[in-house]
Amino acid sequence: MDNALQFANEAFYNAFSARDAAAMEALWDREAPTSCLHPGWGPLFGYEAIVGSWRNLFASGTSPLISCKAPAASLYGDLGFIVCFEALPGGFLAATNAFIRRGALWKIVHHQAGPTEATPPTITGGNAAIN
Amino acid sequence: MDNALQFANEAFYNAFSARDAAAMEALWDREAPTSCLHPGWGPLFGYEAIVGSWRNLFASGTSPLISCKAPAASLYGDLGFIVCFEALPGGFLAATNAFIRRGALWKIVHHQAGPTEATPPTITGGNAAIN
Repeated sequence: MDNALQFANEAFYNAFSARDAAAMEALWDREAPTSCLHPGWGPLFGYEAIVGSWRNLFASGTSPLISCKAPAASLYGDLGFIVCFEALPGGFLAATNAFIRRGALWKIVHHQAGPTEATPPTITGGNAAIN
Repeated sequence: MDNALQFANEAFYNAFSARDAAAMEALWDREAPTSCLHPGWGPLFGYEAIVGSWRNLFASGTSPLISCKAPAASLYGDLGFIVCFEALPGGFLAATNAFIRRGALWKIVHHQAGPTEATPPTITGGNAAIN
């Protein structure tokens, strides 16, 4: 897995768990089209709507403690996807995070998470970079 | 919205509704990494696993009649996303379909759909090409 891509994905979940709105805002791309599909919500489009939703979620104090399991990266030139499980106190979600390359960094352009009845595979010795 | 991208997205939902496994197989990209997150399932990776899942869904006769509502396209060079609602007999899902440009065509590299409590906006005069 691309280390910088993996780092950006981990930074996303760190900001999510820490309810750190400033960190979350810095992770989203400000130039390219952006979309965010929170579980159960309708799609949100554009930087302002998306970072505003995270700000409100974090301010509400109801956003869950979350960690990323079994991240699998797919690279398409300057776009990269990470498909993963999200471990919550009550179970798992399945999620996709898409990133655009910005120099040495990757910025988020898309997030979607939804319920799954599956559980993450047990990975030993590293991440599941499938494909 | 890019017309060929819109056409590929419509072809996906036409194949889905018609339970046409051959059409579905032709729509997925065979070269690039591919991922598919059916509602409630764990992630599937790779052409064979993904087209096999569609073949099984269609053969089971339980895949729903479906139509795409309020598609919104985002372009990133040779990758394009369409975020949309999926109208089912029982309600709506929110979905993302990602495509890679292959000459004049676009092939699917990623699909994720999950439940939403939202409903598609009423669009008049065309599609919602947001961003």
